[in-house]
Amino acid sequence: MQKDSISESVIRRLPRYYRFLSELEHTGTERTSSRELAKQLGLTASQIRQDLNCFGEFGQQGYGYNVAALRRQLELIIGLNRTRAAIIVGAGNLGKVIAANIDFAAYGFRLSGIFDIDHELCGKEIAGFMVKHMDELEAFCKEVHPLVAVLCIPQEAAQETADRLTALGVSGFWNFSHCDLDADRSRVQVENVHLGDSLMTLSFRMSKD
Amino acid sequence: MQKDSISESVIRRLPRYYRFLSELEHTGTERTSSRELAKQLGLTASQIRQDLNCFGEFGQQGYGYNVAALRRQLELIIGLNRTRAAIIVGAGNLGKVIAANIDFAAYGFRLSGIFDIDHELCGKEIAGFMVKHMDELEAFCKEVHPLVAVLCIPQEAAQETADRLTALGVSGFWNFSHCDLDADRSRVQVENVHLGDSLMTLSFRMSKD
Repeated sequence: MQKDSISESVIRRLPRYYRFLSELEHTGTERTSSRELAKQLGLTASQIRQDLNCFGEFGQQGYGYNVAALRRQLELIIGLNRTRAAIIVGAGNLGKVIAANIDFAAYGFRLSGIFDIDHELCGKEIAGFMVKHMDELEAFCKEVHPLVAVLCIPQEAAQETADRLTALGVSGFWNFSHCDLDADRSRVQVENVHLGDSLMTLSFRMSKD
Repeated sequence: MQKDSISESVIRRLPRYYRFLSELEHTGTERTSSRELAKQLGLTASQIRQDLNCFGEFGQQGYGYNVAALRRQLELIIGLNRTRAAIIVGAGNLGKVIAANIDFAAYGFRLSGIFDIDHELCGKEIAGFMVKHMDELEAFCKEVHPLVAVLCIPQEAAQETADRLTALGVSGFWNFSHCDLDADRSRVQVENVHLGDSLMTLSFRMSKD
């Protein structure tokens, strides 16, 4: 599999397949088909077969897919079986919500620290972690080697912080900082979360002429 | 323009165009081209021209686009000039972050109330709003007619709450409740926010073979 050649749209659908198969497995369904998946996910059966074919041969003609086996395959493909160390940078409201509500382990990550520049926040506990000051970042990264940083900081500080973290070995950013980060995409992966874009999409759909 | 025929991928790119043009306008840039936009956004010039052609004729051969005019057109297309009343349902951590951090007015909405079922939270102030109990929902909707609900409630309660709100005239959901809502898409628009999917996408990109 050449992951670089997988299209953005396929990548975006993978988590939905995984989620849906997890639900099916959870309810005891053993077998499904591309037609059944298509109906439930609002896609076409051939699209689903094409998407999955990017990653190998799954399912059998006339039988369909074994739900548990396909879910497990997708788990490996998405990398959910890993445990990369992650840190949250920014312990404000958003950082707190993410620390408390995101089950990092379910996505292949292990939350291992929370940082902020605000001395008032440092030493306070969030989701079982004592917030550390950004001055401790270098020493922490040398010891723990986090691969991922969740950026919950103001836009103005995001790029500089990302560059500092990249130099410390971080190679993935989950960026909530209202900007698109510049990064060398051959070495660093960035997932920008733009909640405003999501709300604009809703606005567009509601603005029928 | 037939909005129903616009592809999902085009819809997803519109907010990025809008954001980027806003930044250009902000820095005083008067003119741009599909080539310049393409370079900055990591797309191709022909894709940008095709996307914009879905909505009408913009730009001039040899001149390119007038930044302010194109931004203003996209604003109207996305519907950002509107002021639809919105409510937040669920005043827990996530509801609070959204109330405090999302500039609804910038996206064509006007936050007009926050609701919860927890009597402990009711009466408390969040982002200038006194949290109301869900028992008051019917009376509130009769008076204020919110068109949009931001769902920040547990998955188990989401569908039932969405159905109740739909019956009260809500026609758009910004759904943070870890599930895909069932809705009659001819009448109700749903934007599901799955932060987990976003984190899985990052995991996938970091899991190079």
